[in-house]
Amino acid sequence: MNNKPDTPVTVVGLGLMGQALAGAFLKAGHPTTVWNRTAAKASQLVAEGARSAPTLDDALAAGPLTIVCLTDYQAVHELLDGSDIQLDGRTLINLTSGDSAQARETADWARRRGARYLDGAIMAVPQAIGTAEAVILHSGPQSDFEAHKPTLDALGTVTHLGADHGLASLYDVAGLAMMWSVLNAWLQGTALLRTAGVDAATYAPFARQIATGVAQWLPGYAEQIDSGSFPAEVSALETDARAMAHLIEESEALGVNAELPRLIKKMADRSIAAGHGAEQYPVLIEEFSRPAAD
Amino acid sequence: MNNKPDTPVTVVGLGLMGQALAGAFLKAGHPTTVWNRTAAKASQLVAEGARSAPTLDDALAAGPLTIVCLTDYQAVHELLDGSDIQLDGRTLINLTSGDSAQARETADWARRRGARYLDGAIMAVPQAIGTAEAVILHSGPQSDFEAHKPTLDALGTVTHLGADHGLASLYDVAGLAMMWSVLNAWLQGTALLRTAGVDAATYAPFARQIATGVAQWLPGYAEQIDSGSFPAEVSALETDARAMAHLIEESEALGVNAELPRLIKKMADRSIAAGHGAEQYPVLIEEFSRPAAD
Repeated sequence: MNNKPDTPVTVVGLGLMGQALAGAFLKAGHPTTVWNRTAAKASQLVAEGARSAPTLDDALAAGPLTIVCLTDYQAVHELLDGSDIQLDGRTLINLTSGDSAQARETADWARRRGARYLDGAIMAVPQAIGTAEAVILHSGPQSDFEAHKPTLDALGTVTHLGADHGLASLYDVAGLAMMWSVLNAWLQGTALLRTAGVDAATYAPFARQIATGVAQWLPGYAEQIDSGSFPAEVSALETDARAMAHLIEESEALGVNAELPRLIKKMADRSIAAGHGAEQYPVLIEEFSRPAAD
Repeated sequence: MNNKPDTPVTVVGLGLMGQALAGAFLKAGHPTTVWNRTAAKASQLVAEGARSAPTLDDALAAGPLTIVCLTDYQAVHELLDGSDIQLDGRTLINLTSGDSAQARETADWARRRGARYLDGAIMAVPQAIGTAEAVILHSGPQSDFEAHKPTLDALGTVTHLGADHGLASLYDVAGLAMMWSVLNAWLQGTALLRTAGVDAATYAPFARQIATGVAQWLPGYAEQIDSGSFPAEVSALETDARAMAHLIEESEALGVNAELPRLIKKMADRSIAAGHGAEQYPVLIEEFSRPAAD
């Protein structure tokens, strides 16, 4: 599909992220209508060519596609429930942060209002919007995503995850868990190495290499999970646990924080106690898939 | 330097890893002497061309370089303290797993015995020894490492980290912390996505992409740590903490384990409580560098 810069788009919610989204549409040449509860937030965008709608209903009526980006889902419902506009055949794409249950509830709500609905998650900061680095995840009917992808392309790298409206939220928090985990492990290592006078810049490339290398194992390890069979092809969990004890002891001996090392071993020890010591690391999916018993 | 396959080498300790090390030296053409408390473990290597030394002293006297790979440092000291052999001018490379304090103590011990000493850590499983994938870290005097690198090259990708004998152990546990953290974050995400019927193989490439992407930030983030200045160029810790709350709530709502999400937020909350909410993530180095107060 070709980009059609004449396709009109509406952006509701002009916080930092909403302003960035509207700015990217404008830059790509789309006639862009904006609306915010506090109209003053539209002034910069109007100076760049946006039309500031006098009312929310006017904003929603301006075109076939409205992007919603508010503080939370409660704000989305409070706002849209106050509108009398007929949404039949219009498409709402909700990029507000929330959880998968809220996304699915909002999809039901939109269905009752006759609207097409996609839920999305923005994995980027406002400054990155409009560049390929801005990854924006979408979930909902694929045909609705495909219909508007040429417009959405103005925002960054837009992808479709599946028909379940909860997927964008789930991938979002899963990705964030990976982000914080890589950062925390790097901080743990940096704290350890700094006790020996190694500065963060010296250690960072090593941490990068390990993270990048381990990331390549994930598709192979995923096969073990999907097959439910965890032969110790590379290493057994019991062997890993001995090295985890070294990590804890070293952290404690050097006076750095040991909470992350202890959690790593706690999860493995639970799996070993459940009889999986001779199996391979991905068997821990069983522990990660249920709340802690203790 | 060229590889000199005629350089003799001795391997002491023939567990699975010691056997793999000796096997790689043999394969590269080095005259290889082996010794193990239980001589039977040498039989396969003897069939491949190794010489099984009748006594430890004989093994140590066989050449200028001895690789030691035992269960732990206690075993190293018990064994070598029982030897009367003069170690003057000989080089010991100790690849036994242990912590940085043990490595430094063993370096002192070797110095008193007149030996040159390198401490090492093997970041590989026995099956990988002899291939480029086997990363072996060394620390101690660089000249001693350089003198034996042509021989060590037979084992895999051998690197020198610095003169402090404790560095190999520290980099080893730091790298393992990264490995387990990437795997745990992937398991957390996989557990979340499986509640929506997404299989592990479908999610894994996304997790790989995030881990690889975040790894690229580390050198830049390291500059903030080394300068002790953490301006929120991309995102403020307070903003991150709100998304961490989503991760916890989503995990709890879906009945998956929430201990990793809670630890992530706990570390950030502590830093925010210490007044760093408007700064950027690497400011958490202060929390990772000290034991938990609670």
